[in-house]
Amino acid sequence: MVVAQNIYDRPDFFAGYSRLGRSVAGLGGAPEWPLLRTMLPEVRGRRVVDLGCGFGWFCRWAAGAGAASVRGLDLSQNMLARARAETPDDGVISYAIADLETLELAAASADLVYSSLAFHYVADAARLYAVIREALAPNGMLVFSTEHPIFMAADNAGWRDDGTGGKTWPVDHYAVEGARVTDWLSVGVVKYHRTMATTLNTLIRCGFAITRVEEFSPTPEQIAANPSLAEEVHRPMFLLVAARRQA
Amino acid sequence: MVVAQNIYDRPDFFAGYSRLGRSVAGLGGAPEWPLLRTMLPEVRGRRVVDLGCGFGWFCRWAAGAGAASVRGLDLSQNMLARARAETPDDGVISYAIADLETLELAAASADLVYSSLAFHYVADAARLYAVIREALAPNGMLVFSTEHPIFMAADNAGWRDDGTGGKTWPVDHYAVEGARVTDWLSVGVVKYHRTMATTLNTLIRCGFAITRVEEFSPTPEQIAANPSLAEEVHRPMFLLVAARRQA
Repeated sequence: MVVAQNIYDRPDFFAGYSRLGRSVAGLGGAPEWPLLRTMLPEVRGRRVVDLGCGFGWFCRWAAGAGAASVRGLDLSQNMLARARAETPDDGVISYAIADLETLELAAASADLVYSSLAFHYVADAARLYAVIREALAPNGMLVFSTEHPIFMAADNAGWRDDGTGGKTWPVDHYAVEGARVTDWLSVGVVKYHRTMATTLNTLIRCGFAITRVEEFSPTPEQIAANPSLAEEVHRPMFLLVAARRQA
Repeated sequence: MVVAQNIYDRPDFFAGYSRLGRSVAGLGGAPEWPLLRTMLPEVRGRRVVDLGCGFGWFCRWAAGAGAASVRGLDLSQNMLARARAETPDDGVISYAIADLETLELAAASADLVYSSLAFHYVADAARLYAVIREALAPNGMLVFSTEHPIFMAADNAGWRDDGTGGKTWPVDHYAVEGARVTDWLSVGVVKYHRTMATTLNTLIRCGFAITRVEEFSPTPEQIAANPSLAEEVHRPMFLLVAARRQA
């Protein structure tokens, strides 16, 4: 049985992660959130599950948008402790520890399964998609973001000079799927590279219809407000997918 | 009205194109063909349209596979002249001049629309997909290959050293869609870069269900037979899509 690497409970990773814009400012600190939000179905009255809920920002947003119930699942004790501390006890939101490699969910127990930037830590995506598919009611939606394969593929990822003073991003070993070990906030963080084709075909084979795909790029307004985002025009960092459970 | 650049009727381009492996050896000279072939529906008894049919290799294959009719359309007089000369006059295959920017097809007149490496020359893909959608019978299929956006995006595309002696491919301006002018077989060849998201979302909006996506990478057997294909593992050159007309 594969068990996920629990990087978020490493002190160095957790400390670094806690200082990221998206950790301090929540959804408003995540530049892809305005786009991801447009991919969500109506949340009011629906049963929502958030896989890799972290500090619970999305859970609180969904509860505020009128969700009937919100279940936040995460591998990290540290993150759930803070999520619980910041969540009003109104009976809508509940949190639990879960490993996405071994996740089990009750059949037809959710109308929306959401996940932000967690799936690239999962080795067995096909198993996870199949579990989500069974957990969704008919016509239920899976909406998730993940690191983009263009961002993850290269052996030595990182900006290069394009030869004329501009920036370019290297892509190599794109077709070689599997673990990529990086040093991001901590050493030896393992992520799993899958091609775009594999992600989409696996979803389709698991019984989903792809309804929308986005490759986050900042708007001119976002770049004006935060010039460091300009480089994101050159290569997508995040892949966003909306998929509907087929009957 | 947009009219396509007719590069194939330029003497330099046509002469260079005629010497490519895929022009000399036909489908067997196209390394992505074995994969693309697995994405096709049953051809026997079906009405097939080939957009950008070139020398007619696929048309003759489809006729040999039992298609009821095969219409090969192309912008190039030169290519159609050779296609006609190499096609037996058995009443199954017909050829005609057509510009994919202004294409018109009769409603529900086809069961399979196929296209190999032509759509990246088309500026208005949304118009083209809509025309194809109406031309397909219910549940009819569109199966096409096009240059991959990873291959097309960069300002200065071409292999680079990855810093350790290996190869890497530059990606920049990925989110900046539109014309890319390259010198391939001729100078000033115009292709149109669209992101993966745009291609898939436009198909979905035009009434297609995505049934399969592939990013061609050579098999170990192909690399053994043709070692120059090994570099294709590093970044996909071709995007292959199969989509079904929704009712």
